[in-house]
Amino acid sequence: MTFPTSVRLVEVGPRDGLQNEPEAIATATKLELIDRLGAAGLAHIEAASFVSPKWVPQMADHREVMTGLTRRNGIVYSALTPNLKGLEAALECGVEEVAVFGAASEAFSQKNINCSVAESLKRFAPVLERAKAANVRVRGYVSCVLGCPYEGEIAPAKVAEVAKALFDMGCYEVSLGDTIGTGTPLKAKRMLEAVARDIPMDKLAAHFHDTYGQALANLYAVLEEGVAVIDSSVAGLGGCPYAKGASGNVASEDVVYLLDGLGIESGIDLDKLAETGHWITQAIGRPNRSKASVALASR
Amino acid sequence: MTFPTSVRLVEVGPRDGLQNEPEAIATATKLELIDRLGAAGLAHIEAASFVSPKWVPQMADHREVMTGLTRRNGIVYSALTPNLKGLEAALECGVEEVAVFGAASEAFSQKNINCSVAESLKRFAPVLERAKAANVRVRGYVSCVLGCPYEGEIAPAKVAEVAKALFDMGCYEVSLGDTIGTGTPLKAKRMLEAVARDIPMDKLAAHFHDTYGQALANLYAVLEEGVAVIDSSVAGLGGCPYAKGASGNVASEDVVYLLDGLGIESGIDLDKLAETGHWITQAIGRPNRSKASVALASR
Repeated sequence: MTFPTSVRLVEVGPRDGLQNEPEAIATATKLELIDRLGAAGLAHIEAASFVSPKWVPQMADHREVMTGLTRRNGIVYSALTPNLKGLEAALECGVEEVAVFGAASEAFSQKNINCSVAESLKRFAPVLERAKAANVRVRGYVSCVLGCPYEGEIAPAKVAEVAKALFDMGCYEVSLGDTIGTGTPLKAKRMLEAVARDIPMDKLAAHFHDTYGQALANLYAVLEEGVAVIDSSVAGLGGCPYAKGASGNVASEDVVYLLDGLGIESGIDLDKLAETGHWITQAIGRPNRSKASVALASR
Repeated sequence: MTFPTSVRLVEVGPRDGLQNEPEAIATATKLELIDRLGAAGLAHIEAASFVSPKWVPQMADHREVMTGLTRRNGIVYSALTPNLKGLEAALECGVEEVAVFGAASEAFSQKNINCSVAESLKRFAPVLERAKAANVRVRGYVSCVLGCPYEGEIAPAKVAEVAKALFDMGCYEVSLGDTIGTGTPLKAKRMLEAVARDIPMDKLAAHFHDTYGQALANLYAVLEEGVAVIDSSVAGLGGCPYAKGASGNVASEDVVYLLDGLGIESGIDLDKLAETGHWITQAIGRPNRSKASVALASR
């Protein structure tokens, strides 16, 4: 057991959390959310996705979001850029970090981005090259690391292979996504151990969904292994597109409560974060999926 | 790390889960719930509470429940009996196991049962004596083991002291309750270690609430220490009386999903259990608080 002394949270609420919302959310609301998250101490915020509005209409205002946000000192505002076109647009907006999105499941890759895993990695190569030339860091996501909605079980070796490819290509950090939340702690540990054979632990992030209520147990298990970067979403924004009505991203507030209890530094003010969660869920008419936040507010 | 190979779940839904419901629930509904839980593989079900209907009106039909249930082979149906009067009534109903309820917090004991912790233990002595004479096992609960709504932090030594008193008095098992769900994994481990200095690990149970979303992480942490008995409530029935609208008991379905994933035997059929959770929450008009169950139903 080698708990980290501090953990960096990557807040994905403004992107992963909002991207599937059916009703248009005002750019001003997104900007206020990002600003409030920064004020609560989140030092890494994924702010937008530079994808075609044909696929993700909710992210159509990515330019307005990236250029409209008030930059706070020391905070990284990143954006998802699945291809060169998205990257160029993001660069025009002065983005300093981008992310690419691969899968550990062939079936998921085919259904989600209409190509094989190998083909998707090939497509990322020019993105990484261009980003490097522009001095912009690239984060790599691997989805389906603990299960796939189409294939079921995913071999840890397959996750390790895709993660290594992204790392070797130049991603400074690889985020391991339990996209459908089916993982449990020992599976999470075994998967992480397989990946960490090729990639240093401090270059790995855990991106776990709470669909089956297991996210915090899984996070605790990988914290024991030394993972020091966690992706989460304020108020658990996002839901699960593969199980209607079910939870998706683990709530940032619940993660911070866990870290506070473990004595692990995150730099985040839980009360301010909880306030932000209550504000955004009221603003967009969604339930607050953070249990810690609901409990704190109802004492 | 010494994970148990099997875990016994103590299902507290029919008692702890329903006791605070404001609307009367038909005895027939309670009996059907208990029967369905048994059919799903729950081998230990806390079925009723022999307290004054003045204090807990929902449990006023305790006699009808205890005498009306269809006993299945190998299943223990227990009842809460806070005093000798309750125990006598339970014995008349042919109960084979009862439980007494102490607190690790002086303030909680005063507010909840109107006497000091020491006084409450004294009052249990004749209950244990009488139960022993009747050849009825007694389970001991300790509440507030990871925090108190009035006192805040509770010293592990205080928990150990109360648990030991109950064990020495003749309780065959002591259930450690995080009544307000404020615990986190390392606190849970430290508390358990303190208690396990005096009581063998196989005589201890974890009764954790999910009010702050931490229950499953805490359970995983104490499973690592070897705890092999877990209290839970189907569909997370119960809520938290100290934080309105917040979660209470951890959902049995989420615990079983965790155990299945860890390869720990529980003897429970998750699908049947989930079905029971959907049935009872619809029957009493409550949200289903089991994330695993909601996810399984919405795939």
